[in-house]
Amino acid sequence: MPHKTVIIGGGAAGLGSAGGVKAADPDAEVVVYTEFEDVAYSPCGIPYVHGQEIPDFERLFLATKEQYVQVGIDVHYETSVTGIDTAARTVQVTGEGTVGYDTLIVATGFEYADPGVPGGDLEGLYYVKNIRAAMEWDKVLDSVKRAVVVHATPLGVEMTTSLAHRGIETHLIDPNPWPLADMADADIMAPVEESWRELGVVAHFNTTLKGFVGQGHVSAVATSDGELPCDLVVVATHKTPNARLAAAAGLKIGSTGGIVVDERMATSVPGVFAAGDAVEVPHGLTRVPLQGLTGSHAYAQGKTAGVNAGGGTRAYKAVYVPWGTPAGKWVIGGASFGETTATALGIPYVLGQAQGISRARYYPGVKPVKVKLLAEPGSLRLIGAQMVGQEGIKERADFLAMAVKHGFTFHDLSTMENVYSPAIGALNEPIVVAATNGLDELRKAGKL
Amino acid sequence: MPHKTVIIGGGAAGLGSAGGVKAADPDAEVVVYTEFEDVAYSPCGIPYVHGQEIPDFERLFLATKEQYVQVGIDVHYETSVTGIDTAARTVQVTGEGTVGYDTLIVATGFEYADPGVPGGDLEGLYYVKNIRAAMEWDKVLDSVKRAVVVHATPLGVEMTTSLAHRGIETHLIDPNPWPLADMADADIMAPVEESWRELGVVAHFNTTLKGFVGQGHVSAVATSDGELPCDLVVVATHKTPNARLAAAAGLKIGSTGGIVVDERMATSVPGVFAAGDAVEVPHGLTRVPLQGLTGSHAYAQGKTAGVNAGGGTRAYKAVYVPWGTPAGKWVIGGASFGETTATALGIPYVLGQAQGISRARYYPGVKPVKVKLLAEPGSLRLIGAQMVGQEGIKERADFLAMAVKHGFTFHDLSTMENVYSPAIGALNEPIVVAATNGLDELRKAGKL
Repeated sequence: MPHKTVIIGGGAAGLGSAGGVKAADPDAEVVVYTEFEDVAYSPCGIPYVHGQEIPDFERLFLATKEQYVQVGIDVHYETSVTGIDTAARTVQVTGEGTVGYDTLIVATGFEYADPGVPGGDLEGLYYVKNIRAAMEWDKVLDSVKRAVVVHATPLGVEMTTSLAHRGIETHLIDPNPWPLADMADADIMAPVEESWRELGVVAHFNTTLKGFVGQGHVSAVATSDGELPCDLVVVATHKTPNARLAAAAGLKIGSTGGIVVDERMATSVPGVFAAGDAVEVPHGLTRVPLQGLTGSHAYAQGKTAGVNAGGGTRAYKAVYVPWGTPAGKWVIGGASFGETTATALGIPYVLGQAQGISRARYYPGVKPVKVKLLAEPGSLRLIGAQMVGQEGIKERADFLAMAVKHGFTFHDLSTMENVYSPAIGALNEPIVVAATNGLDELRKAGKL
Repeated sequence: MPHKTVIIGGGAAGLGSAGGVKAADPDAEVVVYTEFEDVAYSPCGIPYVHGQEIPDFERLFLATKEQYVQVGIDVHYETSVTGIDTAARTVQVTGEGTVGYDTLIVATGFEYADPGVPGGDLEGLYYVKNIRAAMEWDKVLDSVKRAVVVHATPLGVEMTTSLAHRGIETHLIDPNPWPLADMADADIMAPVEESWRELGVVAHFNTTLKGFVGQGHVSAVATSDGELPCDLVVVATHKTPNARLAAAAGLKIGSTGGIVVDERMATSVPGVFAAGDAVEVPHGLTRVPLQGLTGSHAYAQGKTAGVNAGGGTRAYKAVYVPWGTPAGKWVIGGASFGETTATALGIPYVLGQAQGISRARYYPGVKPVKVKLLAEPGSLRLIGAQMVGQEGIKERADFLAMAVKHGFTFHDLSTMENVYSPAIGALNEPIVVAATNGLDELRKAGKL
């Protein structure tokens, strides 16, 4: 009998897991259950189709159903798993009854946090998630004049920009004083807010959601600052781990609500692994558990869970969280954490900052690149970074996450070599300038 | 009496030096001698003005003459230094006579290697260097129908692309089997050659220069493969250190012809420093001396020389050489060395390669990113990298040079986190895929 792995969830973590199992054990039987009609599409692309940067939904699909059949991954579509019995090593499947497994991978993803206000059952509240639903909502957008985005989360930021690009009068409400306040610093977001204003976005910060108002269909959003009339609400509250099945089965749940896993992505119960938005993993420096990372994290965690479930050995390490996203006309990004998080966690830091450029000053298309580096006082080891610019933010964020992980100091970064070629890079790399400025500040203050 | 530093040369190294001296000792007297009418412009931008990517030469100037006066840097323009007496601590200056110094910085730059063939005195041979000359040559280009670029050096590659963009029928000759053969591998250059063909460039590889032909003005280039008629020749032979003055003064000269310096950029003679294209510095892994690096290297070396000449302390470390440049419709780049150099030096390596992408597969504007990583067998520490693509090559090259310097392995790179956001980065970073493929190959071969 081949070893049988059951996977609950058909997102990046679930399908990464399936591939991981097959990589470790090509003969393994792999069954994936998903509630949806499709797997293997990129939900991350949906806001950009709405914004008409991407011309159609069809190209978000990554593989055909037939391709999974061919590699021996048996996907059961529109099928719910309603329970797990870890003692019997079985799951309850709607329409299939009790199904046995040798190893189980829980990749049940995320849910948007319940806004917890009246009117949540009105029509016209759009939770961006499933591609088929998105295709229907995209038709609705053609006739929307005024939309409200609830909360400046990563998705809220993307959808605000997309709706504005679509020509819709877009309002954004958020209880914090600036967008993405959980992860990005105010100075990084200031140019984004400015570019939103240019796009006609009306942002309402320090503003609390009070309810959705309407007769059958939403006609306004009630806030601490009054009512905002609208035809559509994008509910982009923060993502919470969908760990209900796992919790009911007795798997240990952590402080974020995510499933607790070790480096093998093994849960507290033998034979059961978990990956993706349903789990929490530690931040590399602070060990604070994090959830709700990216599709790239979910895929890598899934791969790890799958390899281990399939009898192989693979470790998933703590995360240093390179991140980045377009926002307004800018790209923001960073690694580890910024000043806001450091302050909230009581982590001391010194700063190195620079307003640099992406190409030679005189080369057409040159863009500003603002870099802010946080280092541990004394050792001057990098502990976090944030940026706002356009070109090369993603690649710099990848690098800076490795720089944090490997303990690079301001000295290391201020003496690093950089490519100089007018069309692609400035004489001085902005990261180098930021680290050098940080050292200069310390020297002036007599601290170096 | 303030300490007096004399600097020979007004390029990136010379002016970097001047700034370094002033940073270490604001009261120092700093005199810069340059043979040219200008300092503080970017010669690296010249090919792009010729190619009409940059609209005019004026924007290549970085600072005004007045700005140097204001910061106390005394630049003597169109002034030659003809001799150095290190015992007396004086230099001979045309029109000024004998001038004393406390410390001297030699930043005399590069010369193009003498092509060493008949016809070198004909008109119509363009050596790209000085901006005033470039302005005159740019007018000439308006009436050039057919040009030959001699040698596929970095400048030769840039000028080939620029002349083609300008609409000139451009021929390139080089004795090697592919362009940039000293630094880039054939597989990295193949897409560049293809895109040159699309631009109408005719490349003649394995072809030796025999002479320049003409009556007064060049009318053809004689090669091992016959004569190529032309109106203009761009002589882009390799750069050699201009170390004549230094050699005559008894400074130690290294195997590349560059001035030998230590980490302080001090030469073999007390009180004399050197920086930029006139010196050689060791490669971080091989310790092989390198010369003819970039303006960014020259500037950083100059800064180091200046700080030390001014009484401060600063070290310039061995180089890991991140590099990058547009070539045809692509951007090529890398760090340390590629397969060709490794093979030539007898350095063993294993490969990790990937054909990745710069954004989500479905996002408009997505471009291929080919990554080739070389690692030391056994330890799997990165020893070199080469890439061809468009977006993010420069930032990846900067990172990979640091990865070589800090000894990152294929394991480190294959498990690194990456930003995933459809418009700016793919689910899987090409560097990660390359390292992972390298490990997979080794595993298949039973070597891991």
